[in-house]
Amino acid sequence: MNTNPIGIFDSGLGGLTVAKAIQKLLPHESVIYFGDTARLPYGNKSPKIIKKYSLQIADFLISKGAKIIVIACNTASALALNEVQKHVRVPVVGVIDPGVKAAIHATRNKHIGVIGTVATIRSKEYENRIKATDHTMTVISQPCPLFVPLVEEGWLDGSITKAIANIYLEPFKTENIDTLVLGCTHYPLLKPLLISQTNQKIVLVDSAEPVAEKIFGMLKTSKLQSNSHKNGTLSCYISDFFSQFKTIAERFLEGPIADVTTLDLL
Amino acid sequence: MNTNPIGIFDSGLGGLTVAKAIQKLLPHESVIYFGDTARLPYGNKSPKIIKKYSLQIADFLISKGAKIIVIACNTASALALNEVQKHVRVPVVGVIDPGVKAAIHATRNKHIGVIGTVATIRSKEYENRIKATDHTMTVISQPCPLFVPLVEEGWLDGSITKAIANIYLEPFKTENIDTLVLGCTHYPLLKPLLISQTNQKIVLVDSAEPVAEKIFGMLKTSKLQSNSHKNGTLSCYISDFFSQFKTIAERFLEGPIADVTTLDLL
Repeated sequence: MNTNPIGIFDSGLGGLTVAKAIQKLLPHESVIYFGDTARLPYGNKSPKIIKKYSLQIADFLISKGAKIIVIACNTASALALNEVQKHVRVPVVGVIDPGVKAAIHATRNKHIGVIGTVATIRSKEYENRIKATDHTMTVISQPCPLFVPLVEEGWLDGSITKAIANIYLEPFKTENIDTLVLGCTHYPLLKPLLISQTNQKIVLVDSAEPVAEKIFGMLKTSKLQSNSHKNGTLSCYISDFFSQFKTIAERFLEGPIADVTTLDLL
Repeated sequence: MNTNPIGIFDSGLGGLTVAKAIQKLLPHESVIYFGDTARLPYGNKSPKIIKKYSLQIADFLISKGAKIIVIACNTASALALNEVQKHVRVPVVGVIDPGVKAAIHATRNKHIGVIGTVATIRSKEYENRIKATDHTMTVISQPCPLFVPLVEEGWLDGSITKAIANIYLEPFKTENIDTLVLGCTHYPLLKPLLISQTNQKIVLVDSAEPVAEKIFGMLKTSKLQSNSHKNGTLSCYISDFFSQFKTIAERFLEGPIADVTTLDLL
């Protein structure tokens, strides 16, 4: 039994979708969230710099007593999970493995699509892990670099975002996929649009809930759950407070955000 | 007479358009360029963090012997010019004043449009400086946050970029502007598209050449010109070497880039 917080980080605020899923499934756990808003986005940066930033943030979360670390950023999960695991003594969970499991569970025809940032897709982590689990799977991957700025702008539907989605989704149409992994924490906000632009039978896999379930299992197994009867808190740290912070944060959290601290990590 | 280099910096690689204009006008000058690719973009970040990054980079350029510093980034020029000027002992030039002068020179009907990043437009620097020079000017400003990712993607024309440009340019259509300031070093690459989407009589003002002319005058007045008879060199430093670096750099430079060093400034 352990009332220390669950530490979560992302390049920006998209990982609040993972924080939300964890708070829903584990309401008595407290969460400490770090969004690296001074250096976002990660998706077009190099593996070396993404590893460096991830280790800095992991150190911060450990200093705040995190009993487990969740890398909510797909790009950092793809490129820095091993380094962070070696670097700290608490369990570290990325978003890719839970997404891979959910996708393999969902597919019927063994044709899985993956969308993500340039860095995530280039790392081939989703593809390699899906095939390592079941080598008969076919994986088609597509980077979607304009989706993050579109979501940050709040252009979640409308003809322009639809037209861009159509270009990105083109390779999946001929490949007959039945499952599409949303390999970036920004993409769940595009779900209604992606459903309208794809074959209605395609299952969209979002890592937030599978990650929350994995955390639930890990805390139970390792006896790290909170024994508090009160609801846990969400403390949010960001490396830069920018003008649209509140609007974007509350879009991901689907609710008000209260406890926010700007922290100079650099 | 001084063969030390001209120091130029930008959040990323867009400022290479300014480096190119300086090399064209001042072929015997050497240029040292710093692109903060590990932390780009600046346009959606806070004034505080933009000032901090700018001072770090100015220190680096001074350590390399820069005889003058050019802030090629509009966002950093809008928010950090004064701080950098106070911080170093060499002359510091931003891109906003030269752009303001060129716009005032170009306009006939005194209706000037300005496009830029969210942080640049929010700073009101263009608007304030235009009106401080001539209070009878009307200035209409519009942030265009999707232009930078579109340029980085290489989507410089096509129906989607046109449709986005039409949305951003809408406010200018009713205001009868005759001059449009391209307040971001990425935007010159969109010139052909912007010309096709606006009234053909609108003059597009790009700071690169006016900045080069200002540097030319300043070096002459302060007797800091190079006396070399050989062509100067361009040394490029970046804080992160990412996969598409060469493609994007050469798009801005309109030529090959050779001397590149990745530098950990953080």
